[in-house]
Amino acid sequence: MSAAPPSAPTPPEPVDSPQLVQLGLDADEPCLRADAARNRARLLEAAAGLVAAHGADAVTMEEVAAAAGVGKGTVFRRFGDRTGLLMALLDHGEKKLQAAFLSGPPPLGPGAPPAERLRAFGRAALHRTVEDLELQLAAQPDPGRRFTVPPYRVRHHHVAMLLRQAAPDADCELLTHTLLAQLDPALVHHLIHQCGMPRQRLEDAWTDLVDRVTGTTA
Amino acid sequence: MSAAPPSAPTPPEPVDSPQLVQLGLDADEPCLRADAARNRARLLEAAAGLVAAHGADAVTMEEVAAAAGVGKGTVFRRFGDRTGLLMALLDHGEKKLQAAFLSGPPPLGPGAPPAERLRAFGRAALHRTVEDLELQLAAQPDPGRRFTVPPYRVRHHHVAMLLRQAAPDADCELLTHTLLAQLDPALVHHLIHQCGMPRQRLEDAWTDLVDRVTGTTA
Repeated sequence: MSAAPPSAPTPPEPVDSPQLVQLGLDADEPCLRADAARNRARLLEAAAGLVAAHGADAVTMEEVAAAAGVGKGTVFRRFGDRTGLLMALLDHGEKKLQAAFLSGPPPLGPGAPPAERLRAFGRAALHRTVEDLELQLAAQPDPGRRFTVPPYRVRHHHVAMLLRQAAPDADCELLTHTLLAQLDPALVHHLIHQCGMPRQRLEDAWTDLVDRVTGTTA
Repeated sequence: MSAAPPSAPTPPEPVDSPQLVQLGLDADEPCLRADAARNRARLLEAAAGLVAAHGADAVTMEEVAAAAGVGKGTVFRRFGDRTGLLMALLDHGEKKLQAAFLSGPPPLGPGAPPAERLRAFGRAALHRTVEDLELQLAAQPDPGRRFTVPPYRVRHHHVAMLLRQAAPDADCELLTHTLLAQLDPALVHHLIHQCGMPRQRLEDAWTDLVDRVTGTTA
Protein backbone atom coordinates (compact mmCIF):
# COMPACT_ATOMS: atom_id res chain seq x y z
CA MET A 1 0.00 0.00 0.00
CA SER A 2 2.06 2.97 -1.21
CA ALA A 3 0.60 6.44 -0.65
CA ALA A 4 0.95 8.85 -3.53
CA PRO A 5 2.02 12.37 -2.55
CA PRO A 6 -0.94 14.32 -1.16
CA SER A 7 -0.57 16.91 -3.90
CA ALA A 8 -1.29 14.41 -6.68
CA PRO A 9 -4.70 15.57 -7.91
CA THR A 10 -5.69 12.46 -9.85
CA PRO A 11 -4.83 8.85 -9.11
CA PRO A 12 -3.64 6.69 -12.00
CA GLU A 13 -6.36 4.97 -13.96
CA PRO A 14 -6.96 1.69 -12.20
CA VAL A 15 -6.91 -0.38 -15.39
CA ASP A 16 -5.02 0.68 -18.52
CA SER A 17 -7.35 -0.71 -21.12
CA PRO A 18 -10.69 -2.44 -21.06
CA GLN A 19 -9.89 -6.10 -20.94
CA LEU A 20 -11.11 -9.16 -19.14
CA VAL A 21 -9.49 -9.33 -15.76
CA GLN A 22 -9.54 -12.59 -13.91
CA LEU A 23 -9.53 -13.25 -10.21
CA GLY A 24 -6.07 -14.75 -10.72
CA LEU A 25 -7.23 -18.28 -10.03
CA ASP A 26 -6.81 -19.89 -13.38
CA ALA A 27 -3.84 -18.20 -14.98
CA ASP A 28 -3.10 -21.46 -16.76
CA GLU A 29 -6.38 -21.33 -18.67
CA PRO A 30 -4.98 -19.79 -21.89
CA CYS A 31 -2.75 -22.89 -22.19
CA LEU A 32 -5.63 -25.35 -21.87
CA ARG A 33 -6.32 -27.42 -24.92
CA ALA A 34 -9.65 -26.56 -26.49
CA ASP A 35 -11.40 -29.70 -25.25
CA ALA A 36 -10.10 -29.17 -21.69
CA ALA A 37 -11.38 -25.56 -21.78
CA ARG A 38 -14.78 -26.76 -22.98
CA ASN A 39 -14.79 -29.39 -20.25
CA ARG A 40 -13.96 -26.77 -17.62
CA ALA A 41 -16.71 -24.45 -18.85
CA ARG A 42 -19.18 -27.34 -18.77
CA LEU A 43 -18.26 -28.12 -15.15
CA LEU A 44 -18.71 -24.47 -14.17
CA GLU A 45 -22.07 -24.19 -15.90
CA ALA A 46 -23.17 -27.35 -14.09
CA ALA A 47 -21.99 -25.92 -10.76
CA ALA A 48 -23.73 -22.58 -11.48
CA GLY A 49 -26.95 -24.47 -12.17
CA LEU A 50 -26.66 -26.26 -8.82
CA VAL A 51 -26.01 -23.00 -6.94
CA ALA A 52 -29.01 -21.38 -8.63
CA ALA A 53 -31.27 -24.34 -7.84
CA HIS A 54 -30.15 -25.29 -4.34
CA GLY A 55 -27.72 -22.63 -3.00
CA ALA A 56 -23.96 -22.77 -2.58
CA ASP A 57 -24.14 -25.05 0.46
CA ALA A 58 -25.67 -27.82 -1.63
CA VAL A 59 -22.82 -27.86 -4.16
CA THR A 60 -20.42 -30.79 -3.76
CA MET A 61 -17.71 -32.08 -6.07
CA GLU A 62 -19.78 -35.26 -6.53
CA GLU A 63 -22.94 -33.44 -7.57
CA VAL A 64 -21.08 -31.24 -10.02
CA ALA A 65 -19.49 -34.31 -11.60
CA ALA A 66 -22.89 -36.00 -11.87
CA ALA A 67 -24.58 -32.90 -13.31
CA ALA A 68 -21.82 -32.48 -15.91
CA GLY A 69 -21.70 -36.19 -16.76
CA VAL A 70 -18.01 -36.67 -15.89
CA GLY A 71 -16.12 -38.64 -13.26
CA LYS A 72 -15.55 -37.14 -9.80
CA GLY A 73 -11.78 -37.32 -10.34
CA THR A 74 -12.08 -34.86 -13.23
CA VAL A 75 -13.66 -32.25 -10.97
CA PHE A 76 -10.99 -32.70 -8.29
CA ARG A 77 -8.15 -32.55 -10.86
CA ARG A 78 -9.55 -29.36 -12.35
CA PHE A 79 -10.38 -27.40 -9.17
CA GLY A 80 -8.42 -29.03 -6.35
CA ASP A 81 -11.19 -28.81 -3.77
CA ARG A 82 -14.63 -27.38 -3.16
CA THR A 83 -13.27 -23.92 -2.30
CA GLY A 84 -11.31 -23.91 -5.56
CA LEU A 85 -14.47 -24.82 -7.43
CA LEU A 86 -16.53 -22.07 -5.78
CA MET A 87 -13.84 -19.42 -6.43
CA ALA A 88 -13.60 -20.52 -10.07
CA LEU A 89 -17.38 -20.21 -10.24
CA LEU A 90 -17.28 -16.61 -8.99
CA ASP A 91 -14.53 -15.81 -11.48
CA HIS A 92 -16.53 -17.41 -14.29
CA GLY A 93 -19.64 -15.34 -13.49
CA GLU A 94 -17.69 -12.08 -13.27
CA LYS A 95 -15.96 -12.76 -16.60
CA LYS A 96 -19.29 -13.40 -18.29
CA LEU A 97 -20.51 -10.03 -16.99
CA GLN A 98 -17.29 -8.32 -18.10
CA ALA A 99 -17.58 -9.80 -21.59
CA ALA A 100 -21.19 -8.57 -21.79
CA PHE A 101 -20.47 -4.96 -20.81
CA LEU A 102 -17.18 -4.67 -22.71
CA SER A 103 -18.11 -6.30 -26.00
CA GLY A 104 -21.65 -7.69 -25.84
CA PRO A 105 -24.74 -6.27 -27.57
CA PRO A 106 -26.16 -2.85 -26.57
CA PRO A 107 -27.46 -1.37 -24.33
CA LEU A 108 -25.07 -3.18 -21.94
CA GLY A 109 -22.31 -3.38 -24.53
CA PRO A 110 -21.04 -0.66 -26.91
CA GLY A 111 -23.47 1.12 -29.22
CA ALA A 112 -26.00 2.71 -26.82
CA PRO A 113 -25.81 6.21 -25.25
CA PRO A 114 -23.62 6.24 -22.10
CA ALA A 115 -26.46 6.86 -19.60
CA GLU A 116 -28.41 3.99 -21.12
CA ARG A 117 -25.36 1.73 -20.83
CA LEU A 118 -25.01 2.78 -17.18
CA ARG A 119 -28.62 1.81 -16.47
CA ALA A 120 -28.09 -1.55 -18.18
CA PHE A 121 -24.84 -2.11 -16.27
CA GLY A 122 -26.55 -1.70 -12.89
CA ARG A 123 -29.35 -4.08 -13.84
CA ALA A 124 -26.87 -6.71 -15.05
CA ALA A 125 -24.56 -6.31 -12.05
CA LEU A 126 -27.49 -6.55 -9.62
CA HIS A 127 -28.71 -9.65 -11.38
CA ARG A 128 -25.28 -11.21 -11.06
CA THR A 129 -24.89 -10.16 -7.41
CA VAL A 130 -28.26 -11.60 -6.41
CA GLU A 131 -27.50 -14.82 -8.31
CA ASP A 132 -24.18 -15.42 -6.53
CA LEU A 133 -24.86 -13.54 -3.30
CA GLU A 134 -23.75 -16.24 -0.87
CA LEU A 135 -20.52 -16.84 -2.77
CA GLN A 136 -19.76 -13.15 -3.15
CA LEU A 137 -20.34 -12.47 0.54
CA ALA A 138 -18.08 -15.34 1.53
CA ALA A 139 -15.37 -14.03 -0.82
CA GLN A 140 -15.58 -10.34 0.30
CA PRO A 141 -12.06 -8.93 0.51
CA ASP A 142 -11.07 -7.20 3.73
CA PRO A 143 -11.71 -3.41 3.90
CA GLY A 144 -8.13 -2.52 2.90
CA ARG A 145 -8.48 -4.43 -0.40
CA ARG A 146 -12.15 -3.83 -1.20
CA PHE A 147 -11.39 -1.13 -3.82
CA THR A 148 -8.24 -2.62 -5.31
CA VAL A 149 -9.21 -6.19 -6.23
CA PRO A 150 -9.25 -6.72 -10.03
CA PRO A 151 -13.02 -7.32 -10.48
CA TYR A 152 -13.82 -4.04 -8.68
CA ARG A 153 -11.22 -2.18 -10.73
CA VAL A 154 -12.66 -3.44 -14.00
CA ARG A 155 -16.15 -2.34 -12.96
CA HIS A 156 -14.78 1.03 -11.82
CA HIS A 157 -12.93 1.57 -15.10
CA HIS A 158 -16.07 0.82 -17.09
CA VAL A 159 -18.49 2.98 -15.07
CA ALA A 160 -16.02 5.90 -14.90
CA MET A 161 -15.58 5.76 -18.69
CA LEU A 162 -19.37 5.99 -19.18
CA LEU A 163 -19.78 8.68 -16.52
CA ARG A 164 -17.13 10.88 -18.16
CA GLN A 165 -19.36 10.94 -21.24
CA ALA A 166 -22.70 11.22 -19.42
CA ALA A 167 -21.67 13.64 -16.63
CA PRO A 168 -18.47 15.32 -17.87
CA ASP A 169 -18.64 18.07 -15.22
CA ALA A 170 -18.60 15.61 -12.28
CA ASP A 171 -15.61 14.16 -10.42
CA CYS A 172 -16.24 10.87 -12.20
CA GLU A 173 -13.44 9.00 -10.46
CA LEU A 174 -15.17 9.57 -7.10
CA LEU A 175 -18.77 9.46 -8.30
CA THR A 176 -18.08 6.01 -9.74
CA HIS A 177 -17.26 4.65 -6.28
CA THR A 178 -20.57 6.07 -5.05
CA LEU A 179 -22.54 4.42 -7.83
CA LEU A 180 -20.77 1.09 -7.38
CA ALA A 181 -21.56 1.16 -3.65
CA GLN A 182 -25.22 0.61 -4.53
CA LEU A 183 -24.22 -2.73 -6.09
CA ASP A 184 -22.05 -3.85 -3.17
CA PRO A 185 -22.85 -7.46 -2.20
CA ALA A 186 -22.98 -6.61 1.53
CA LEU A 187 -25.54 -3.84 0.88
CA VAL A 188 -27.57 -6.01 -1.52
CA HIS A 189 -27.63 -8.73 1.14
CA HIS A 190 -28.76 -6.24 3.78
CA LEU A 191 -31.54 -4.82 1.63
CA ILE A 192 -32.90 -8.11 0.32
CA HIS A 193 -32.36 -10.45 3.25
CA GLN A 194 -32.36 -8.16 6.29
CA CYS A 195 -34.92 -5.59 5.05
CA GLY A 196 -37.00 -7.84 2.77
CA MET A 197 -36.83 -5.60 -0.31
CA PRO A 198 -37.61 -7.12 -3.74
CA ARG A 199 -34.80 -6.96 -6.31
CA GLN A 200 -36.95 -4.79 -8.56
CA ARG A 201 -36.82 -2.01 -5.98
CA LEU A 202 -33.00 -2.09 -6.07
CA GLU A 203 -33.10 -1.92 -9.89
CA ASP A 204 -35.50 1.02 -9.81
CA ALA A 205 -33.27 2.84 -7.30
CA TRP A 206 -30.26 2.30 -9.57
CA THR A 207 -32.13 3.73 -12.56
CA ASP A 208 -33.21 6.73 -10.48
CA LEU A 209 -29.64 7.26 -9.27
CA VAL A 210 -28.31 7.25 -12.84
CA ASP A 211 -31.06 9.68 -13.87
CA ARG A 212 -30.14 12.06 -11.05
CA VAL A 213 -26.37 12.05 -11.47
CA THR A 214 -26.48 12.33 -15.26
CA GLY A 215 -29.52 14.62 -15.46
CA THR A 216 -31.16 12.33 -18.01
CA THR A 217 -34.14 9.99 -17.95
CA ALA A 218 -34.50 6.49 -19.34
CA MET B 1 -30.40 -11.50 11.46
CA SER B 2 -34.09 -12.14 10.81
CA ALA B 3 -35.32 -11.76 7.24
CA ALA B 4 -38.57 -9.88 6.76
CA PRO B 5 -41.01 -11.52 4.35
CA PRO B 6 -40.01 -10.76 0.73
CA SER B 7 -43.31 -9.01 0.12
CA ALA B 8 -42.68 -6.32 2.76
CA PRO B 9 -42.18 -3.20 0.61
CA THR B 10 -40.57 -1.01 3.24
CA PRO B 11 -38.32 -2.02 6.10
CA PRO B 12 -39.04 -0.57 9.50
CA GLU B 13 -37.34 2.70 10.28
CA PRO B 14 -33.96 1.76 11.66
CA VAL B 15 -34.18 4.13 14.62
CA ASP B 16 -37.48 5.22 16.14
CA SER B 17 -36.52 8.70 17.20
CA PRO B 18 -33.44 10.84 16.85
CA GLN B 19 -31.43 10.16 19.92
CA LEU B 20 -27.82 9.60 20.77
CA VAL B 21 -26.92 6.00 20.17
CA GLN B 22 -23.83 4.61 21.77
CA LEU B 23 -21.60 1.80 20.65
CA GLY B 24 -22.80 -0.09 23.70
CA LEU B 25 -19.50 0.11 25.50
CA ASP B 26 -20.34 2.38 28.37
CA ALA B 27 -23.92 1.63 29.27
CA ASP B 28 -23.04 2.48 32.86
CA GLU B 29 -22.22 6.07 31.98
CA PRO B 30 -25.59 7.55 32.97
CA CYS B 31 -24.92 6.28 36.51
CA LEU B 32 -21.53 7.95 36.78
CA ARG B 33 -21.29 10.68 39.36
CA ALA B 34 -20.74 14.06 37.73
CA ASP B 35 -17.06 14.27 38.67
CA ALA B 36 -16.40 10.74 37.37
CA ALA B 37 -18.11 11.67 34.10
CA ARG B 38 -15.99 14.81 33.82
CA ASN B 39 -12.89 12.74 34.58
CA ARG B 40 -13.82 10.25 31.87
CA ALA B 41 -14.40 13.01 29.33
CA ARG B 42 -11.05 14.56 30.22
CA LEU B 43 -9.27 11.24 29.66
CA LEU B 44 -10.96 10.81 26.29
CA GLU B 45 -10.11 14.33 25.16
CA ALA B 46 -6.49 13.68 26.17
CA ALA B 47 -6.48 10.41 24.22
CA ALA B 48 -8.06 12.11 21.20
CA GLY B 49 -5.32 14.74 21.31
CA LEU B 50 -2.67 12.04 21.32
CA VAL B 51 -4.27 10.20 18.37
CA ALA B 52 -4.47 13.45 16.40
CA ALA B 53 -0.85 14.33 17.15
CA HIS B 54 0.86 10.94 16.89
CA GLY B 55 -1.62 8.38 15.51
CA ALA B 56 -3.44 5.57 17.29
CA ASP B 57 -0.35 3.38 17.55
CA ALA B 58 1.34 5.94 19.78
CA VAL B 59 -1.49 5.98 22.34
CA THR B 60 -0.70 4.07 25.55
CA MET B 61 -2.50 4.03 28.89
CA GLU B 62 0.56 5.70 30.42
CA GLU B 63 0.62 8.58 27.95
CA VAL B 64 -3.10 9.22 28.31
CA ALA B 65 -2.71 9.33 32.09
CA ALA B 66 0.19 11.75 31.79
CA ALA B 67 -1.61 13.97 29.27
CA ALA B 68 -4.73 14.13 31.47
CA GLY B 69 -2.75 14.65 34.67
CA VAL B 70 -4.08 11.55 36.48
CA GLY B 71 -2.53 8.32 37.73
CA LYS B 72 -2.16 5.36 35.36
CA GLY B 73 -4.44 3.29 37.62
CA THR B 74 -7.33 5.68 36.91
CA VAL B 75 -7.06 5.04 33.19
CA PHE B 76 -6.95 1.25 33.68
CA ARG B 77 -9.91 1.31 36.10
CA ARG B 78 -11.97 3.37 33.66
CA PHE B 79 -11.28 1.55 30.38
CA GLY B 80 -9.91 -1.88 31.33
CA ASP B 81 -7.23 -2.00 28.66
CA ARG B 82 -5.93 -0.17 25.62
CA THR B 83 -8.59 -1.69 23.32
CA GLY B 84 -11.29 -0.53 25.73
CA LEU B 85 -9.81 2.97 25.66
CA LEU B 86 -9.67 3.09 21.86
CA MET B 87 -13.26 1.82 21.49
CA ALA B 88 -14.46 4.39 24.03
CA LEU B 89 -12.62 7.01 22.02
CA LEU B 90 -14.45 6.03 18.80
CA ASP B 91 -17.77 6.08 20.66
CA HIS B 92 -16.95 9.52 22.13
CA GLY B 93 -16.17 10.97 18.66
CA GLU B 94 -19.32 9.54 17.10
CA LYS B 95 -21.48 10.90 19.91
CA LYS B 96 -20.01 14.37 19.48
CA LEU B 97 -20.90 14.22 15.78
CA GLN B 98 -24.41 12.93 16.58
CA ALA B 99 -24.98 15.74 19.08
CA ALA B 100 -23.85 18.26 16.46
CA PHE B 101 -26.15 17.07 13.68
CA LEU B 102 -29.15 16.32 15.92
CA SER B 103 -29.17 19.39 18.12
CA GLY B 104 -26.17 21.61 17.34
CA PRO B 105 -26.22 24.96 15.53
CA PRO B 106 -27.18 25.16 11.81
CA PRO B 107 -26.33 24.35 9.08
CA LEU B 108 -25.29 20.97 10.56
CA GLY B 109 -28.00 21.08 13.22
CA PRO B 110 -31.70 22.04 12.85
CA GLY B 111 -32.64 25.40 11.32
CA ALA B 112 -31.08 25.28 7.83
CA PRO B 113 -32.72 23.99 4.61
CA PRO B 114 -32.42 20.18 4.29
CA ALA B 115 -30.00 20.17 1.32
CA GLU B 116 -27.75 22.59 3.17
CA ARG B 117 -27.83 20.35 6.26
CA LEU B 118 -26.93 17.38 4.05
CA ARG B 119 -23.90 19.23 2.68
CA ALA B 120 -22.82 20.15 6.21
CA PHE B 121 -23.34 16.57 7.40
CA GLY B 122 -20.98 15.15 4.77
CA ARG B 123 -18.29 17.70 5.58
CA ALA B 124 -18.56 16.97 9.31
CA ALA B 125 -18.64 13.19 8.84
CA LEU B 126 -15.63 13.30 6.51
CA HIS B 127 -13.76 15.42 9.00
CA ARG B 128 -14.52 12.91 11.72
CA THR B 129 -13.63 9.91 9.54
CA VAL B 130 -10.29 11.37 8.51
CA GLU B 131 -9.53 12.28 12.14
CA ASP B 132 -10.13 8.75 13.44
CA LEU B 133 -9.40 6.79 10.27
CA GLU B 134 -7.05 4.21 11.79
CA LEU B 135 -9.41 3.49 14.66
CA GLN B 136 -12.47 3.30 12.44
CA LEU B 137 -10.76 0.93 10.01
CA ALA B 138 -9.66 -1.33 12.85
CA ALA B 139 -13.21 -1.35 14.24
CA GLN B 140 -14.98 -2.03 10.90
CA PRO B 141 -17.81 -4.50 11.47
CA ASP B 142 -17.92 -7.57 9.23
CA PRO B 143 -19.97 -7.26 6.01
CA GLY B 144 -23.08 -8.86 7.54
CA ARG B 145 -23.26 -6.15 10.26
CA ARG B 146 -21.97 -3.13 8.35
CA PHE B 147 -25.45 -1.65 7.85
CA THR B 148 -27.00 -2.63 11.18
CA VAL B 149 -24.54 -1.31 13.79
CA PRO B 150 -26.05 1.57 15.83
CA PRO B 151 -23.74 4.38 14.60
CA TYR B 152 -24.56 3.57 10.97
CA ARG B 153 -28.27 3.41 11.75
CA VAL B 154 -28.23 6.82 13.41
CA ARG B 155 -26.49 8.35 10.40
CA HIS B 156 -28.92 6.59 8.06
CA HIS B 157 -31.94 7.84 10.00
CA HIS B 158 -30.65 11.40 9.89
CA VAL B 159 -29.71 11.50 6.19
CA ALA B 160 -32.95 9.75 5.14
CA MET B 161 -34.97 12.31 7.12
CA LEU B 162 -33.22 15.19 5.30
CA LEU B 163 -33.46 13.48 1.89
CA ARG B 164 -37.22 12.96 2.28
CA GLN B 165 -37.52 16.75 2.48
CA ALA B 166 -34.91 17.58 -0.17
CA ALA B 167 -35.72 14.83 -2.71
CA PRO B 168 -39.27 13.64 -1.86
CA ASP B 169 -39.67 11.77 -5.16
CA ALA B 170 -36.62 9.52 -4.57
CA ASP B 171 -36.44 6.15 -2.82
CA CYS B 172 -34.78 7.87 0.12
CA GLU B 173 -34.26 4.72 2.15
CA LEU B 174 -32.01 3.34 -0.61
CA LEU B 175 -30.50 6.62 -1.77
CA THR B 176 -29.32 7.23 1.79
CA HIS B 177 -27.17 4.09 1.70
CA THR B 178 -25.64 5.35 -1.53
CA LEU B 179 -24.80 8.74 -0.06
CA LEU B 180 -23.38 7.21 3.12
CA ALA B 181 -21.14 4.95 1.04
CA GLN B 182 -19.14 8.01 0.03
CA LEU B 183 -18.27 8.52 3.72
CA ASP B 184 -17.32 4.86 4.35
CA PRO B 185 -14.00 4.65 6.24
CA ALA B 186 -12.65 1.95 3.91
CA LEU B 187 -13.35 4.14 0.85
CA VAL B 188 -11.95 7.27 2.52
CA HIS B 189 -8.81 5.31 3.38
CA HIS B 190 -8.52 4.07 -0.20
CA LEU B 191 -8.95 7.53 -1.71
CA ILE B 192 -6.64 9.40 0.67
CA HIS B 193 -3.95 6.83 1.41
CA GLN B 194 -3.99 4.55 -1.64
CA CYS B 195 -4.84 7.18 -4.30
CA GLY B 196 -3.29 10.26 -2.63
CA MET B 197 -6.38 12.48 -2.89
CA PRO B 198 -6.63 15.58 -0.64
CA ARG B 199 -9.60 15.64 1.76
CA GLN B 200 -10.92 18.77 0.04
CA ARG B 201 -11.56 16.75 -3.10
CA LEU B 202 -13.71 14.31 -1.11
CA GLU B 203 -15.65 17.22 0.39
CA ASP B 204 -16.20 18.76 -3.05
CA ALA B 205 -17.42 15.43 -4.41
CA TRP B 206 -19.89 15.13 -1.51
CA THR B 207 -21.25 18.62 -2.21
CA ASP B 208 -21.57 17.79 -5.91
CA LEU B 209 -23.36 14.53 -5.07
CA VAL B 210 -25.88 16.33 -2.84
CA ASP B 211 -26.44 18.93 -5.58
CA ARG B 212 -27.13 16.22 -8.14
CA VAL B 213 -29.46 14.04 -6.10
CA THR B 214 -31.46 16.97 -4.70
CA GLY B 215 -31.36 19.12 -7.85
CA THR B 216 -30.17 22.11 -5.81
CA THR B 217 -26.90 24.01 -5.57
CA ALA B 218 -25.06 25.24 -2.51
